[in-house]
Amino acid sequence: MTDDLRDEVHAAARRARVAANDLVLATRERKDAALLEMAAALRTRAPEVLDANAKDIEAGRAAGLAEGLIDRLTLTEARIGGVARGLETVAGLPDPIGEVLRGSTLPNGLELRQVRVPMGVVGMVYEARPNVTVDAAGLALKSGNAALLRGSSSAEHSNTALVAILRDALEAVGLPADAVQLLPCHDRASVTHLITARGLVDLVIPRGGAGLIDAVVRQATVPTIETGVGNVHVYVDASADLDMAQRIVLNSKTRRTSVCNAAESLLVHEAVADEFLPRIITALRQADVTIHGDERFAQDPRVVPATDEDWDTEYLSLDLAARVVESLDQAVEHIAEHGSGHTEAIVTDDVRAARTFTARVDAAAVMVNASTAFTDGAEFGMGAEIGISTQKLHARGPMGLAELTSSKWVAWGEGHVRATS
Amino acid sequence: MTDDLRDEVHAAARRARVAANDLVLATRERKDAALLEMAAALRTRAPEVLDANAKDIEAGRAAGLAEGLIDRLTLTEARIGGVARGLETVAGLPDPIGEVLRGSTLPNGLELRQVRVPMGVVGMVYEARPNVTVDAAGLALKSGNAALLRGSSSAEHSNTALVAILRDALEAVGLPADAVQLLPCHDRASVTHLITARGLVDLVIPRGGAGLIDAVVRQATVPTIETGVGNVHVYVDASADLDMAQRIVLNSKTRRTSVCNAAESLLVHEAVADEFLPRIITALRQADVTIHGDERFAQDPRVVPATDEDWDTEYLSLDLAARVVESLDQAVEHIAEHGSGHTEAIVTDDVRAARTFTARVDAAAVMVNASTAFTDGAEFGMGAEIGISTQKLHARGPMGLAELTSSKWVAWGEGHVRATS
Repeated sequence: MTDDLRDEVHAAARRARVAANDLVLATRERKDAALLEMAAALRTRAPEVLDANAKDIEAGRAAGLAEGLIDRLTLTEARIGGVARGLETVAGLPDPIGEVLRGSTLPNGLELRQVRVPMGVVGMVYEARPNVTVDAAGLALKSGNAALLRGSSSAEHSNTALVAILRDALEAVGLPADAVQLLPCHDRASVTHLITARGLVDLVIPRGGAGLIDAVVRQATVPTIETGVGNVHVYVDASADLDMAQRIVLNSKTRRTSVCNAAESLLVHEAVADEFLPRIITALRQADVTIHGDERFAQDPRVVPATDEDWDTEYLSLDLAARVVESLDQAVEHIAEHGSGHTEAIVTDDVRAARTFTARVDAAAVMVNASTAFTDGAEFGMGAEIGISTQKLHARGPMGLAELTSSKWVAWGEGHVRATS
Repeated sequence: MTDDLRDEVHAAARRARVAANDLVLATRERKDAALLEMAAALRTRAPEVLDANAKDIEAGRAAGLAEGLIDRLTLTEARIGGVARGLETVAGLPDPIGEVLRGSTLPNGLELRQVRVPMGVVGMVYEARPNVTVDAAGLALKSGNAALLRGSSSAEHSNTALVAILRDALEAVGLPADAVQLLPCHDRASVTHLITARGLVDLVIPRGGAGLIDAVVRQATVPTIETGVGNVHVYVDASADLDMAQRIVLNSKTRRTSVCNAAESLLVHEAVADEFLPRIITALRQADVTIHGDERFAQDPRVVPATDEDWDTEYLSLDLAARVVESLDQAVEHIAEHGSGHTEAIVTDDVRAARTFTARVDAAAVMVNASTAFTDGAEFGMGAEIGISTQKLHARGPMGLAELTSSKWVAWGEGHVRATS
């Protein structure tokens, strides 16, 4: 059985490779036509998708899925419209493929260019939300890649309906349907087969919790990009404007608690602790935030004493770890020890402190006097986002179309040979 | 014992991390001063290095190392001078760190920049040549990274002497000596401990044969970059200028056979086979090249019949696989099946053929009417090279300073918070 599954995943990858060989030659016109056709078809065939989605929801309820998961799983006509508009936005973005990254005529006359090219076959592993299926397929297509989508079994009917529509749209404009394929989702082993299909798959992006991402990175022989684990800190410096600090802490923590750019820890310089702690505790409690504080914070009865685990916890809920630090250095060290390299913020009016913090903190994004919520592809002007990389290789921070590409050096000569040195 | 070795590698990685935290703040002035100090010290302390090198050579001879390996292992005053000049060249290159890759003021006024930053701790695994020790340390330092060097045990005395000099030079200019460390080299397990030191090491670059690279990529949990395996093809198209084709084939095959950009296979379009085969066989035989040919080539008694393995062999010697193909398509398919994604060349006077070949061939470098020998960091104007990547993620083709860096998004605001959507 396992070998059958492996063969099935590998066969899909081989079909994807053939499709990728066509996509590499596809013009922007053709790819955009496919994206617009996909968007139109999603709207006209929304009833199919909603029928399929109803089956998933029914099965989810029967299986006792939490209401939060049911909500993430649920599609509506409005949500399908949003997903279709996403595809139209991607169609409007410049084509990353063919962009000349560097280039010059060498002293010997050789004309050298480094050109952006597709990765080839890109795998995505993700959880319940069926909109990711369409977003990922659209971004992969625009960047010239064939997509192997491994969604959650709880969204199987929805994903199957969506992918059927996307594949029809590809064929309608003369592109290969196998540029978008759904992988079997009932067995964890299909993920293993995908991430070990070395030579068949060029890149796998896991989107999900720390457990999924860790498992993928440890087992993978295919290149992977870690995404979306955010143990995010806000540091309130000695020189902070405390009104500003309060706004930024509240926005970073409470705007949306379930996203990876939400703050999970608050660090406060001891010089402003007396003044800042009472007011931020009050404001956070009013916003229903549970504060897990160090000794200093926990002197306030409204604060729960923190345990060692709190400093490393990505709550994704209305909880916040909070600590008073002696110095900027101690804040930087705390972040180096506990941060996940996603987003870190400082609130300060001191230029030197801001420069030190931005230079020394090692994260995908560092905010000075701004909410951590801004780490987002759309906010950064990328037009679309396939995830937020927390690794340093290849892509760091929000990943848009460019991050789904590789490059190739192309040299044109007229019989150039290299001297023997 | 193995656990001791693991502890030793991890301890070195932790010291490297501390050093990397200093390097991230080091100015270009300081780093260049260290590079120039290293170069000067290598020249004045050359006798120490030569003494140590003599021990390695003696041990190598006693162990029966092949003369080719002894040659690669051997240092002379002239070679040490060459290595020192390499460091001076790196000192003269622009500092990649701090380069703004993208940046804009967002509609909300947030000032956003994507800035180049060091990777952090970079491991190098390589073979006998002790000059790699200095080259790698110099490039790592200039790009703000701490280097963990795992050389060959056959070069242990030489590497130890070289690293002592490099570390003294670092301290002389006030940088941490632990920015350059030599790892234990007597046990293969030290490589395993390096490539699984997840969270301690940011990147490992293996330089060596296909076996080493494959083992590293399969075992590693730390990000790695595959380098330097080149099954390189030259394709002579129907419209090729055959004089040019002969020059390019000979240069690509015979300029230096031991390097990864040397051609290993020749593909000839059948339309020019009658005219081209006799002359290229004569020219290659005059250059002492053994031709492993398909049926068509092997009609000539000077050609050895090829076996299936020949198409996948990186000879690194005066051997060349050779095949007649029916079409450009067949050439592209042959390369897709057997190429290693390093360098592929077409000789043609047909613009359409050249465009098709450059678009469809998936390799780090594609040459039109030029020798494959040009795939090289120095030739490409990078000033220095740490290896040639044959993977698509992060770096592809010759890797210079920029390829040893990551990036970080930095945003400056004045209390910016994100609207709840």
